[in-house]
Amino acid sequence: MLKEDERIDHLLKDSSKRIIQSPTVFSYSLDSVLLADFASVPKQRGKILDLCTGNGIIPLLLTQRSSVPITGVEIQERLYDMANRTITLNRLENQLDMIHGDLKEMPSYFKNNKFELVTVNPPYFSTPSSQHQNISEYVTFARHEILCTLEDVVKACSKLAKSGGKVAMVHRPAKLVDILILFRQYKIEPKRLRLVYPKLGKEANMLLIEGIRDGKPDLKHLPPLITYEENGEYTEEMRGIIYGTE
Amino acid sequence: MLKEDERIDHLLKDSSKRIIQSPTVFSYSLDSVLLADFASVPKQRGKILDLCTGNGIIPLLLTQRSSVPITGVEIQERLYDMANRTITLNRLENQLDMIHGDLKEMPSYFKNNKFELVTVNPPYFSTPSSQHQNISEYVTFARHEILCTLEDVVKACSKLAKSGGKVAMVHRPAKLVDILILFRQYKIEPKRLRLVYPKLGKEANMLLIEGIRDGKPDLKHLPPLITYEENGEYTEEMRGIIYGTE
Repeated sequence: MLKEDERIDHLLKDSSKRIIQSPTVFSYSLDSVLLADFASVPKQRGKILDLCTGNGIIPLLLTQRSSVPITGVEIQERLYDMANRTITLNRLENQLDMIHGDLKEMPSYFKNNKFELVTVNPPYFSTPSSQHQNISEYVTFARHEILCTLEDVVKACSKLAKSGGKVAMVHRPAKLVDILILFRQYKIEPKRLRLVYPKLGKEANMLLIEGIRDGKPDLKHLPPLITYEENGEYTEEMRGIIYGTE
Repeated sequence: MLKEDERIDHLLKDSSKRIIQSPTVFSYSLDSVLLADFASVPKQRGKILDLCTGNGIIPLLLTQRSSVPITGVEIQERLYDMANRTITLNRLENQLDMIHGDLKEMPSYFKNNKFELVTVNPPYFSTPSSQHQNISEYVTFARHEILCTLEDVVKACSKLAKSGGKVAMVHRPAKLVDILILFRQYKIEPKRLRLVYPKLGKEANMLLIEGIRDGKPDLKHLPPLITYEENGEYTEEMRGIIYGTE
């Protein structure tokens, strides 16, 4: 089941679920956990698409919140393969499936088959000079805008979400202007914005944004999400998101 | 010195300063106090312009933070007159002056005479049907986009700020998308965003935004500003902004 330096981790929030990870290929991060918590999930009807799915962490987390079919799309074959084995490991073949492909090609692949919710944790960073790229090619492709730009991502989300459907994204706060402009340009009206701050008096270091395809302008700014207390421990809300409430 | 129902209030933060107000014509609000605190103020060089100045509260507050010349622009003659009398009352003729005019005409009035900082607390609300407008015409014009739209405001700010100069605005969070799109369209690159939340777990109800004319993209999200503690008292930071630190 495992290749090279891969390992099986239990999800912190639901220890019955397990995920295949690798320190050199792909390990999921807090960003994905926050996005899976933030997105407005269709509970029983429709279907969900997760672009840039990596090892499939977001689809796996979303099975805790929804029983609809969830498809992940990953361009890197090695990550796609990890995600597929994670589905088997969890016996979730009935709810989850993975596509090995380029998000830019998904609109023509799915045609009029559109989604209630599209989630995406895209590469954050501009293409670096080759000397600054991460040593692992897998990590480089997952983190840098080499295989797709932010505009590619938003354009694909726009075409894949049904009218009235939702698009939820996690990104860096510095990119907010570009994100809002592209969302509106591609008819995903921004509706919910949540900023994540490492501590109460610090600058935001993450943003969660959700828009509605063909929605009306009315952006809500959710309460700030604070990661750590002054003493360095997770805040109660963050503990709930990461570990669950029980 | 006073007309009709006007009164003289002391500034909460600096009781040596006084301002002429009127419950039916114009009284300043927390928005202006927050904007005067938030804006990056040139301390000794350059000059400041405050559009939609009302009774001149923002120029008066900014005299606590800067010694450069500050000009207010107000389209309503009655408010302009109040602001002018407030200048005399405080003997601030050497630093402050007021222009009775339309912000849309200020770029041709000032020509190449540009500002280090332009501040504006514009009308927030779309033009209402006449039956929903406030009973006082003064208040209606100050609060509703009747005499100028958001685009008029941003366009004027863009033309009045020097290259590298700053534009600072307070507005409603729901307008963030429009504001960021218009800022970038008119070459005011958004650089600092601060959201104001009534309480820690509530949605934001005010936003403070500052851009730099011809600046490079890099938006910082400042720490959330929380207005009230759980017990309904102002937070320590808010008390500092409103009453000063001593």
